[in-house]
Amino acid sequence: MAYRKAAAILAGSCTVSAFQSTLLNRGIPLSSGQHNNLRRFSSNIILAMNSGPSFCEKCGTAMEIRIPHGDERERHVCGNSSCGYVSYQNPKVVVGAICTHLDRVLLCKRAIEPCKGKWGYPQGYLEIGETTRQGAARETWEEAGVKFDASKCQLLALYNLAGIQIQTIYRVDLDDDTFEAGHESSDVKFVPWNEIQWDELAFPTVHWGLEHALAMKDEEKPIVQERTKLVTMDGQWKVEEG
Amino acid sequence: MAYRKAAAILAGSCTVSAFQSTLLNRGIPLSSGQHNNLRRFSSNIILAMNSGPSFCEKCGTAMEIRIPHGDERERHVCGNSSCGYVSYQNPKVVVGAICTHLDRVLLCKRAIEPCKGKWGYPQGYLEIGETTRQGAARETWEEAGVKFDASKCQLLALYNLAGIQIQTIYRVDLDDDTFEAGHESSDVKFVPWNEIQWDELAFPTVHWGLEHALAMKDEEKPIVQERTKLVTMDGQWKVEEG
Repeated sequence: MAYRKAAAILAGSCTVSAFQSTLLNRGIPLSSGQHNNLRRFSSNIILAMNSGPSFCEKCGTAMEIRIPHGDERERHVCGNSSCGYVSYQNPKVVVGAICTHLDRVLLCKRAIEPCKGKWGYPQGYLEIGETTRQGAARETWEEAGVKFDASKCQLLALYNLAGIQIQTIYRVDLDDDTFEAGHESSDVKFVPWNEIQWDELAFPTVHWGLEHALAMKDEEKPIVQERTKLVTMDGQWKVEEG
Repeated sequence: MAYRKAAAILAGSCTVSAFQSTLLNRGIPLSSGQHNNLRRFSSNIILAMNSGPSFCEKCGTAMEIRIPHGDERERHVCGNSSCGYVSYQNPKVVVGAICTHLDRVLLCKRAIEPCKGKWGYPQGYLEIGETTRQGAARETWEEAGVKFDASKCQLLALYNLAGIQIQTIYRVDLDDDTFEAGHESSDVKFVPWNEIQWDELAFPTVHWGLEHALAMKDEEKPIVQERTKLVTMDGQWKVEEG
């Protein structure tokens, strides 16, 4: 029950206080520790709630939260019955590229939040009209001024982030080491594998990707790593291997 | 240029006729054959255009198409400058599961469009709050009444569809062969590999997935297949291998 309800909160179809009331009604009062954990867990939830639409994007009418006909879960539905538009909220796709040249890996220092000042490989949201490998190539061009042929890269990893994001990470060996920092990067460099500052990386997934790229660097065809970062109901992270 | 502009059309930030004007202005008039091809190519584009928001989901104001500050491409932006909400359009994630039991594979006959009456493995859109493997397990439960432990399945394939969708396909060996058709399936059965009716499958990707699952069926750890279905500017499909 708790998981399903949490998913409903995450989907923006239930408020955190309504969730607490539900728990109370079912005889599951929260201790103050649990309450704090729920608040921590809620940061992602609130983010997702805020991203739910208040108004219909087709006709501008206020949206309602209810189960549409023929569906099994609550959605954001247009309050104007002659419109009836249903807004589906789905996880987004992030694409990234781990680029190497002569046993050094391309890293960018983030000029923007989150994790401004920390290091990572080029990555960002997949855009409509491009494939995951084209997106990885575009992000590398935008963040590091490095171009590569999207048909030449290899899939290295699939990461899931707590039901809000999936990441497809590629690797590619570059023909040269020219670069030019884009406006999202305050610095760009090629770093020898044994000089990576692992505690200066932006996200756990960046750590995962680089670690796996290093493990696979002598393999002609890399194993595709699958990892999942789940948020558990006690507010902790849990990592699952694929 | 043509590709970038086509992507802009696909993103809903450019109309087909504006695209034709652009080609004309640059001295690239379209022959009637090319024009027809563009119209065919445009079916996806127009779909994507129609899915763009007309009204702001935050405040209900009419949306405009322009390049937001700090961005590099046209987006749907709220016309109310005190709101300024930017609506990002991104490809969606589809998850699927190829379930086997004693060398037979679970197939569902589609009770809904598109490709009603054709066969496929359970698949559908990834929901907020779930991971790709959880989504694959949910779709299998909804369409075929078959339950499996999401932690037991293995990533089998990543498919890209023309910049509008990415698919992650899993495989799992089931403990038994009980099932119950869900409301999206008119029939469900376990089919021996050598009795699959390949010309009765719903989508090219279903063909790809089953073909690859068959090729990998004796491998303890399957190779993850990457395939891309690209729409070329002459309106044809083109398949790229990863």
